Parts: sequence; structure tokens; C-alpha cells
Amino acid sequence: MTDLSWNTAITEIKPNEVRLRGYRIDDLMGSISFAEAVYLAIKGELPSANVAKMMNAILVSSIDHGASPPSALAARTVASTGAPLNAAVAAGILSINRHHGGAIQGCIKVLKSGIDRVHQSGETVDKIAANLVSEHKASGKRIAGLGHRIHTNDPRTAKLFQLAQELGIAGEGLQMIVAIQSSLADAGKALPINVDGAIAAVLLDLDIPSELANAMFFIARVPGLILQAHEEQTRERPMRRIHPTEISYDGPAPRSLD
Amino acid sequence: MTDLSWNTAITEIKPNEVRLRGYRIDDLMGSISFAEAVYLAIKGELPSANVAKMMNAILVSSIDHGASPPSALAARTVASTGAPLNAAVAAGILSINRHHGGAIQGCIKVLKSGIDRVHQSGETVDKIAANLVSEHKASGKRIAGLGHRIHTNDPRTAKLFQLAQELGIAGEGLQMIVAIQSSLADAGKALPINVDGAIAAVLLDLDIPSELANAMFFIARVPGLILQAHEEQTRERPMRRIHPTEISYDGPAPRSLD
Amino acid sequence: MTDLSWNTAITEIKPNEVRLRGYRIDDLMGSISFAEAVYLAIKGELPSANVAKMMNAILVSSIDHGASPPSALAARTVASTGAPLNAAVAAGILSINRHHGGAIQGCIKVLKSGIDRVHQSGETVDKIAANLVSEHKASGKRIAGLGHRIHTNDPRTAKLFQLAQELGIAGEGLQMIVAIQSSLADAGKALPINVDGAIAAVLLDLDIPSELANAMFFIARVPGLILQAHEEQTRERPMRRIHPTEISYDGPAPRSLD
Amino acid sequence: MTDLSWNTAITEIKPNEVRLRGYRIDDLMGSISFAEAVYLAIKGELPSANVAKMMNAILVSSIDHGASPPSALAARTVASTGAPLNAAVAAGILSINRHHGGAIQGCIKVLKSGIDRVHQSGETVDKIAANLVSEHKASGKRIAGLGHRIHTNDPRTAKLFQLAQELGIAGEGLQMIVAIQSSLADAGKALPINVDGAIAAVLLDLDIPSELANAMFFIARVPGLILQAHEEQTRERPMRRIHPTEISYDGPAPRSLD
Repeated sequence: MTDLSWNTAITEIKPNEVRLRGYRIDDLMGSISFAEAVYLAIKGELPSANVAKMMNAILVSSIDHGASPPSALAARTVASTGAPLNAAVAAGILSINRHHGGAIQGCIKVLKSGIDRVHQSGETVDKIAANLVSEHKASGKRIAGLGHRIHTNDPRTAKLFQLAQELGIAGEGLQMIVAIQSSLADAGKALPINVDGAIAAVLLDLDIPSELANAMFFIARVPGLILQAHEEQTRERPMRRIHPTEISYDGPAPRSLD
Repeated sequence: MTDLSWNTAITEIKPNEVRLRGYRIDDLMGSISFAEAVYLAIKGELPSANVAKMMNAILVSSIDHGASPPSALAARTVASTGAPLNAAVAAGILSINRHHGGAIQGCIKVLKSGIDRVHQSGETVDKIAANLVSEHKASGKRIAGLGHRIHTNDPRTAKLFQLAQELGIAGEGLQMIVAIQSSLADAGKALPINVDGAIAAVLLDLDIPSELANAMFFIARVPGLILQAHEEQTRERPMRRIHPTEISYDGPAPRSLD
Repeated sequence: MTDLSWNTAITEIKPNEVRLRGYRIDDLMGSISFAEAVYLAIKGELPSANVAKMMNAILVSSIDHGASPPSALAARTVASTGAPLNAAVAAGILSINRHHGGAIQGCIKVLKSGIDRVHQSGETVDKIAANLVSEHKASGKRIAGLGHRIHTNDPRTAKLFQLAQELGIAGEGLQMIVAIQSSLADAGKALPINVDGAIAAVLLDLDIPSELANAMFFIARVPGLILQAHEEQTRERPMRRIHPTEISYDGPAPRSLD
Repeated sequence: MTDLSWNTAITEIKPNEVRLRGYRIDDLMGSISFAEAVYLAIKGELPSANVAKMMNAILVSSIDHGASPPSALAARTVASTGAPLNAAVAAGILSINRHHGGAIQGCIKVLKSGIDRVHQSGETVDKIAANLVSEHKASGKRIAGLGHRIHTNDPRTAKLFQLAQELGIAGEGLQMIVAIQSSLADAGKALPINVDGAIAAVLLDLDIPSELANAMFFIARVPGLILQAHEEQTRERPMRRIHPTEISYDGPAPRSLD
């Protein structure tokens, strides 16, 4: 070995053997869901049944949000030029930044700083949340994870929080974001917790490293980007002008699970 | 509506309501796994329990294959320059092409053409497989989905085939690729069916559109790309020279489920 | 040296010495224009003064074409999410494909096949052009490099052809595309030669490898993509809806050189 | 016009008329070099003859730096999987970040802050440079634009500075970086000004907006990325292991202009 040799702790590859974090991949196949494998890959350990259910719900929540988010429009624009599917998906992923999808990490930072202050000061969560709200107001900054340009009551947030409670995962992260929302409403600025904020709270309570929090959104959204790009290439003519809002839905009618 | 208006059949967005292929996303959350949501998004209908298990196994099989595939090295190279995580992942996805990951689609094409010939000619699968092998040999082309630079007996293939049999999914696709492998071995060229070939056969038997077949690999591999890039940024110094083979594993020791 | 060692014939790097195709880069700096360096890099030899002028004109012709091409819209969409400039430019470059910018390579292929037929058959250029036109018509295919969705008489084409004549560069490529356009007009389908077609003809007459022909367009357009993305980030609010046609120009008023 | 309408000040497109910053593109073609068009696009005005020469020299200086920079290796890694050229170039551009190419913007920031202090304090450039050096030392931070892993005396820097002097462009930017280098040497840490630092100083003296400074490097390097990717696809076998240092040069032998 030269000084160019290096180590990885993710996956071990030997002839006829592939191990993810120590487990044979062929043992994992058929035994755990993909969302559990994602958790294992990120955290190094298998999730409990409840955490597995939560991970699946988080990924399902963000699989697609229609054709109008910038990541979908970027993927479609690239797809419309005759690009291979991976180029369209890459453009979509490059669109996930501070103003789109990227709020998860920013929100975790705010929640963490609030929780740290609670621990250090002995003040209540509500008191610290009120302080965070007034500090952001004073500096003219928005708190990441609240507000949505379409939803006033994001259905994904309600369900993520309900599951987090039922599955015993809800903790300080969830408590803090709810307190921030209340405090904002008290200050006359009622805003919904959006799906980024909800995922931020739950990932914090799951102790997922914050620098990988946005990445959970990439994992979840890639199928959506693929389908948006694929629909563009199969339903529309190349190089069309893609209007960002004149979009109607003509897929399967509303239906319920069983 | 102007002539710029257009339609999508994937996801319906209304204020406080998000429906994927007709189902409320908040009903899907907690009820189905992410892999099932991927199937619903692609096919427009929910999978059976057996197909759900197969979809999870396919995605788990390809979540990562260590640090040496070109997609992992491209993601690490970009990550080592101080790039944001999405840029590194985009570079990884741009590396999934004909020679890496891209064999799935090519293999499906061969399998399909073989199956069509069986139907049209009334010949046996073994006869048609032998014809395909000799035709490829004559034209000097490799058959996509066979052979691997590391594995002589890919553990992922064996498990995918075992599950496909147990779950009642194995059909003409699987039969054809096995016949092709046999025929190749008879011709003195014993090659393992690699994970691309195995996924190709199973996706064909699941009737997944072949132009989305490679995309299944993007979905599966994104977590691996994220973790490779993240490990690069957290364990290594920026701008290091990344050797493509002098890689050792120092993660969790081998362990078993249960 | 191990079997991993490899060679490059483009640039030689030694401590305190950088040589492009054999020339010291610091000798080239101040002596040749960037377009000449591009030619040297591609062809391995310095261009004549006339070819240098042509190379500059080709690159200038394609530096930008406003905010409405898909590459500009993709770059702006990514930029609007708060992406770093290189991510926006990457998305723009990923938009240069068969239906946008990519016609250069397709057009060269047609022109080359026509020229080859002239040489082999001894027929006139006009006769072969007529054959190509009727063959494309019969198979329902468009000939790449003709037609534009905005310009009926592309000013860039006229100037490229004028320069190619004046500089003694015009050859069989240019002759063939003009013959094809005439033949199309005779067949009742008058179409302008677009800038892709004009560049294709000139690059063919410059003997630039056809697989690098589209790449000339990447080189030319990168400044445009940068400025489109930068203008998006400096003039517009994040995450705005980007309309693909409701675009007005409010820059410097029309003016002339000297 | 609806509220979705918007403006651009870069390029005006009308049928049969394309104007960059007010000038007809067909007037610019044949009259100015590509580097001048880049300056016009960025600054909105045509450069003087001296500035035109400087712009060309800056772009030539960075057209390629061999096969070992991360951007070249990323482009080659993607190219080796069978990717189209634009995907390989996109991966290369995504590799231009803080630790590679991205030093230009960081260096401009340091130089600007130094110049501002000179203006405000009335202190000498040498005094302020010494302060900057000791402040960076105290905080353990490197000053962007100094030091190189291969060159102890970067030939591109010397030439850029010589040209900037000869062409009457050298100003406070250049003065400040030279003073910083001296001050570092006096402090026992002799480091060369690298090409990023040299370009930073000259772009500052040319009053190019600092957020577009790194972008000058994208423009310059795209031809290099294209050729690295193209050489990979034409000289090497797909999916080879790309060693990051065992690279030899076998192109044209050293030669001189004239």
C-alpha cells in the first residue's frame, strides 16, 4: 500500500460478497425495506420497527409534488431537449438548494439552537421559541420550515407529526417547531409548518446528522424527478415552451386505499 | 388557459391536498413503504404484497457497491473540491451510463427480443437463447447483464432470483436470461449473471417500462452516492488524490441479522 | 509505473512549466487569442490568421441567444433556487442535446455523407443534395441545421458564410448545405440555414472532428449561461415562476460598432 | 403582459436580429475576438484594445492544466462510463469549487478588504498587507490565491503580471497581492502567487464583478474539460481504473512560437 491508499466504512466488497455496514446485502434483501437500508447506511445500525415505519413515511411524503417545483421544471426543461434521463435527474437534483428542499437543514439548525438554549438556560420551550421568533423578526429573517406557497395546512406535516407521536419518535425537535409556530401565530404571523419543517423536526428526533438531512429529500424526490422527465419525453413534443403554472392534472381520479 | 397550458398525470396538487396517482399522499404515508410508492408512481397502481417485497429487494440490492464504481469515484472527486452534496450526487448520477448501471436497459432489450422470437417461432427458450448467443458471438458483441469485474457469482443475483421464484414473480424474463447464461457456458464462456442482468430479468417480469429500468438503479444508488460523498468530505482532506483501487474497508465487522 | 499508468497528449505539466500541445502556456498568453488556443487544443496545431478569425467569429456567434432557449431557462431555474453559479451552468450544459445545439453534429453527418457520395459517384453536388432531400422526405426525417423557430433568415448564418468566403475557408461543407437548402426550396419547402447548420458547414470545412463539433457550442455558450444565471440571481426574487415567453429586453439600446 | 412577464438586459432577440448588449451579433462577428465578446457580455461595454489583450491572456492561461486536476478527473470518470460529452463537462464544472478554481473569488475578497482598509486608514499597502497576513495566521486560515501543489513559481502568474504592467492594467489589486506575498515571505512562509491569485488581482483591476470572477475560470476551462473527456473516450477502454497521478505526457514535443 502506498500513501494513496484509503479507507471506507460504508460497504465492504469482496469477490462474491457485498456487506453494507457489516451485513450481507443478500441477507438484507427480502428482509428489510429500502427505507430501512437507507437508515442503516446513514446511521450504521438497523432501525427499530417504529423507526422503519417513520423512515418510509418520510420518504413517501416527498416522492413528488407535481410538475411545478423548480426541480421538476428543471428536469423537464432538460428532458425536452432530448437529454438522457440521468441528465434530467441531475438537473433536478442541482435545483435542490436553499430556497427549494434545502429548508430542512436550515430548520434543523434553528431547532437545535433552540433546544441547546433550553438545556443551558433552564427556560421553557415556549419561552425560548418566543425568543427565537422575536430575534428572527428583529433581524428580518424568515425561520426555515414555515410557510408554503400553496398549502395553508400541509397534509404531509399533519401526518408526519401524527406518526411521530404514535410511533414514540416525537421529541424535542417536534416540540420546538410546534412552539415556534405557536409563537409566530401569537405574534400575528400564522404560518403552517411545511413538509421541510416537519421532516426537519422528525429527523432531529431520529438523530440523523443534519448535513445529511437535505440528502433525505434527494433520496425521496428522485423517483418524482424521473417520472416528470419521463412524462415530458413521452407526452410532449421536444423543445416546447414549458409554462410554469398553466398545469392541469389528468391522471387517475381521486381514490382511497381499500 | 392559453396554448401554453399542459397536463400531467402523476401528482395532483391542490391547496392542502397532494394526490399521487389518485391517492392522498397522507393516506399513503404510514400505509405503504417507499418502494411501493415508487411502484405506484411508475405503474399507476399499487403493487401486491409480493411485488412490494420484490421492489424493496431490488432497491436494497443496489443501494451501494463500495467506493470503487465510477459513480462513487465521480461523486467523491466532486465532493473533494468542497462542492455541496447535491453537486456530488449529480456527478454520480451522470456516471450511470452504458458501461455502468446502464446494462439493465440493454439487457431487457435482448431478453425481450428473445421472448418475442419464442412467441413468434414456437421454438424453445433454450433454442432461441442459443441463437442469441451465437448471433452476438458472430457480431463480436457482449450480451449486457452478464459478467462482472469482481464477482464470479454475484450474491445479489442469486437472492433476486430466489425471491422472484418464492414470490411468484419469475417469468419469461428470468427464464430467458438463465437460458442465455447456460448457452454461453455450453459455448465455453461461463459468465455470471450480474446484478444488472438480474434486475433486468425481474423488471421485465414485473412489466416495468424498459426506459425506466435504468432509472430504478438511480433511485437505488442515490443513498450510496450521498454517503460516499459525505464520507469523502468528513474523513478526507480536500483535493486529495483519490486512488481507484487502494481502498480498504474499516467499518463494522461482519455480522448477521437476528 | 504500474499497469494503472496512462498517457495524455493534451497538456504537459512539470514544476513551473505548463505546455499545451508542446507550446509554453506563458508564451501563448499575450500572443494568441483564446479562440486560437481552443483550435490549438482541438487540432494540435496553431491556426492561420484567417482560421483564427473564423474561430473567433464562430464562438462569438453563439455566445448567447437570450433568455428563452431551454439551456438558458434550465440555468435560470436552477439559479432561482439559490444554487451556486456552477450548478446553474451545469444544468444549462446538460440541456444541449439533439433538439438544442445538438444539430451541429447531426448536420455534419448529413453533409459528410453527401460529400462522400459526390466523390464516389462523380455526380454533381446539386444532384446529390436533391437525392438527400428526397430521401429525407421519403423517410419523414428533417435535415438537421435547417429551420428556426424565430428567424426566417438567421443573421449569424449570413455572416458566417460571408466570412468563410472572404477568409478562403468555404469548401465542400458550405457548398453542400447551400445546395441542400436550394433543393429543399425547389421542393416547396423553403427553410433558412440556422446557426447550427452554418457552424456545421464551416467546422466541416475546418476539418474539426465531428464528435467535437457540438462541443464548440458548449464553449461558446458558457458565458451566456453564466450571465443568464447571474442576472436571475441578481434581478429576480428566488423561486419565482419563470415564464418561457413573456420576456422583454431592457438592456442597452441598439448601437453600432465605431 | 401578465405578472409572469419579466425582463432581461443581456441579449435582445427579434426575428432575424440578435443584439448582445445593444450590438448586432453579426456586426460583432469578424470584428471582435470571443474574449472581447465575453467582456462585453459581462460588463455591458466593449473593452479597449489593451483590455481585450488581457482578457484573451486570462482565458488562455486557464484553458487546461493537464489530466490531474479534480475537474479533469471528474470529467474523465464520467466519460469513461460512456456518457455524452456534455455530461462529462457538467461533472467537470461541478468540480470547480472552493478548493479548485474557486480561490479566485476568495482571493478577490481578501484583496478588496485590504484595499478598502488602505483607503480608510491612510496606511501603506505594505502595512495593511502585513496586518492581513498576521490576522490570517492568528486565525489559522490560509489566504486564497497563494501556494500550489506543483509549481513553486507559476509561469502563468509571471506572464499575467507582466502583461498587466505592459498594458497599463495593473492597479491596486496587483499591488496588494504582491505586498501580501512579500509579507508572507518576511514571516518565513514564502509561497508563490498561483494562477487563481493572479487572475483575482487582474480581474479586480479590470473591475469585473467578484461573483463572476470564478465564472471566468469556467469559461476558460471548458475546452480543457472537453478535450480531457474526449481523449478518455477515444484513447482508453471504458470503465478503466483512472489513477490520479501515474500520468505521462506523450503529445507534441516542446516547441516555440515563431
